[in-house]
Amino acid sequence: MYTIDATHAPQRKSWVEAANAPGADFPIQNLPFGRFRRAGSNEAFRIGVAIGDQVLDLRAAGLIATDDMNTLMAATPANRLQLRHAISDGLTAGSPAQGEWKKALVPQEQCEYTLPCRVGDYTDFYTGIHHATTVGKLFRPDNPLLPNYQWVPIGYHGRASSLVISGTAIRRPNGQTKAPDAEVPTFGPSRRLDYELELGYYIGQGNTLGAPISIDDAEAHLFGLGMFNDWSARDLQAWEYQPLGPFLSKNFGSTVSPWIVTMEALAPFRSPFVRPEGDPQPLPYLDGAGNRQQGQIDITLQVLIQTAQMRAAGETPVQLSSGRASEAAYWTAAQLVAHHTVNGCNLQPGDLFGSGTLSGTTPESAGSLLEMSMGGKNPVTLPNGETRSFLQDGDTLILRGWCEREGAVRIGLGEASGTIQG
Amino acid sequence: MYTIDATHAPQRKSWVEAANAPGADFPIQNLPFGRFRRAGSNEAFRIGVAIGDQVLDLRAAGLIATDDMNTLMAATPANRLQLRHAISDGLTAGSPAQGEWKKALVPQEQCEYTLPCRVGDYTDFYTGIHHATTVGKLFRPDNPLLPNYQWVPIGYHGRASSLVISGTAIRRPNGQTKAPDAEVPTFGPSRRLDYELELGYYIGQGNTLGAPISIDDAEAHLFGLGMFNDWSARDLQAWEYQPLGPFLSKNFGSTVSPWIVTMEALAPFRSPFVRPEGDPQPLPYLDGAGNRQQGQIDITLQVLIQTAQMRAAGETPVQLSSGRASEAAYWTAAQLVAHHTVNGCNLQPGDLFGSGTLSGTTPESAGSLLEMSMGGKNPVTLPNGETRSFLQDGDTLILRGWCEREGAVRIGLGEASGTIQG
Repeated sequence: MYTIDATHAPQRKSWVEAANAPGADFPIQNLPFGRFRRAGSNEAFRIGVAIGDQVLDLRAAGLIATDDMNTLMAATPANRLQLRHAISDGLTAGSPAQGEWKKALVPQEQCEYTLPCRVGDYTDFYTGIHHATTVGKLFRPDNPLLPNYQWVPIGYHGRASSLVISGTAIRRPNGQTKAPDAEVPTFGPSRRLDYELELGYYIGQGNTLGAPISIDDAEAHLFGLGMFNDWSARDLQAWEYQPLGPFLSKNFGSTVSPWIVTMEALAPFRSPFVRPEGDPQPLPYLDGAGNRQQGQIDITLQVLIQTAQMRAAGETPVQLSSGRASEAAYWTAAQLVAHHTVNGCNLQPGDLFGSGTLSGTTPESAGSLLEMSMGGKNPVTLPNGETRSFLQDGDTLILRGWCEREGAVRIGLGEASGTIQG
Repeated sequence: MYTIDATHAPQRKSWVEAANAPGADFPIQNLPFGRFRRAGSNEAFRIGVAIGDQVLDLRAAGLIATDDMNTLMAATPANRLQLRHAISDGLTAGSPAQGEWKKALVPQEQCEYTLPCRVGDYTDFYTGIHHATTVGKLFRPDNPLLPNYQWVPIGYHGRASSLVISGTAIRRPNGQTKAPDAEVPTFGPSRRLDYELELGYYIGQGNTLGAPISIDDAEAHLFGLGMFNDWSARDLQAWEYQPLGPFLSKNFGSTVSPWIVTMEALAPFRSPFVRPEGDPQPLPYLDGAGNRQQGQIDITLQVLIQTAQMRAAGETPVQLSSGRASEAAYWTAAQLVAHHTVNGCNLQPGDLFGSGTLSGTTPESAGSLLEMSMGGKNPVTLPNGETRSFLQDGDTLILRGWCEREGAVRIGLGEASGTIQG
């Protein structure tokens, strides 16, 4: 799988000073990819790498010859690693590249971003077993975790066209809802609008239709990951989702963070994939030595909220919840790749997988308001005294993630934020 | 909506002789769009219009300046109509264009086709109420037609990457299945592989995220339609589909026909949309005068099968079933557009909607083997004595559709065919 090499060495520092600040999201050990331009300009979006408080324009630095991220994502793992080393070496303090590359830096505070790549198909999985159990209880009290859950990495196709970049406002969707005791449905704005704390996995190299990717090859097809908010209208969902799954309750907008943190950057933060005792072992096509040894990724996740009232009062966002991805996810990213293709389905560079809501076992580590408020029954009280069962207009939700571990330099995923518009 | 004009006049004949043959799929009144090249060549695919037994290369004829179908699909309805008139006039017997345009014809028997456009997102609906009822009985005997069916045009997102053009072989998918009486699932090839007889609606002009398309504007956003086979692995589906819908049971391949028959061509075949007495009326956002007056399209649908044994014996395909789209579909194409966007979801030129399986009320008009064989309990006997509960390796399935009506020239949709590979 991935090896820890000189690009991860804690002693490696950058000549971009802000990258060396303790706790920075984008130290030289990270080097995530995104698409940027100067804010408010008409420039074409181009490929950049975040370093400290700057973006390195990869083409301007002479490192690549394309503005198309999907082309870059289609590269072989060996070529990707080579590019990582070239970027890392050039950004290292004392590098002779500094003089030239300085001209290829743009301060992040002057940048705007677009989707980091063209997403051909987006699939949302459901790997958060505590989320599935808690939500299952609300939708099906008698039958919370369905019999297939511990065997099948449950997933469904999402809408690619309504993926938006962090910072884009999210309009409260209209739709049909039906109260349990109502005779007929009514039409109007969703009253149970929610967020879902997810990771977004991006596919690198694809596969040909009819040619599955084995669990042992799966990691080679993953390019990296970012933060992902799968906004959900729970009242629309409850009425529409039988028998073919969620549709309008999801496809009004899904927010991705600007940066894709590569699988190479995540090498120091891998951990074993272990099935809890008593649970069924994965079928052979979902089981491999590499996956068992380091299939999971240790990522700390955090959700923050800033209400309109807080914003008016000059109050900064406050934490709603926080948890750990590897404790929430029942299936690894490699297992999702193997499962998605086992029937011959083809993946393409830039395809996006949502992890599903990554909730822990407690309300403090829940990945949605649905869970925190127990379906709206126990509203959450914010520090300023406001309460929330579901999202209100003007609420800004911010998802953050980062990796830290003894002996490694902390790396951040950045954030996926969005504000609800009425 | 659409008006009948000179391009539909029965007396209009073409200088392409085969277009004037009675019963031809592609008379001058049709003029469907596709992407073609000379078979076996390395030519780039380009936009053509089927006329009789020929394809008119639209760029070579000087009619358009692009090879990109999606650009053409994004045109305004007025511009589309203008193009239709230009093509029709030039192909009309006696047209001065004949001399030049003759050089832009390629015989269909020398052509190969690719997907008629780039499909950004593909959504599969479930408009066939008799299909929903029959299948509902098999999956949920106590609860065949769910309470939302007559209110919500049920749909779910499909996989765009595995859409294939007619003629592409379909590999039998592997996957997890679990027999009702089994303790644990097993892995292997699907044993209940099926087809689904559907229409595919293509979107023309799109909408901006957050800006719904009203039912009255919806027809203006439809470009046309073709035949669509939503191959389905019933055993995979039964085990995986709860709670988020079908996934691997569908995304191993879906077949589209080469030609998009435009909404303009279908103008003579429109009929009223009427809710059966006693059924709930559609909510206002799904109800409009135009839709009530001519929301439905009268299309005759046919399914044929040729087994490997038939092929070896030199026997031609035989009819499995036949029915009428307007009697099967509970929701019109315009209602699907209005529903899909009512929450703000954005459609893009080239997006594809599957109609859902269009079954009549009898086994002879069923759109899948699941229905014809009642879940495998009553195998279908073919004329050569073979029986089928589900598809066998080597089976070729052919979906065909056409419109005919007193006073109009019959137009055909062509066919979507595929052969099962083991």
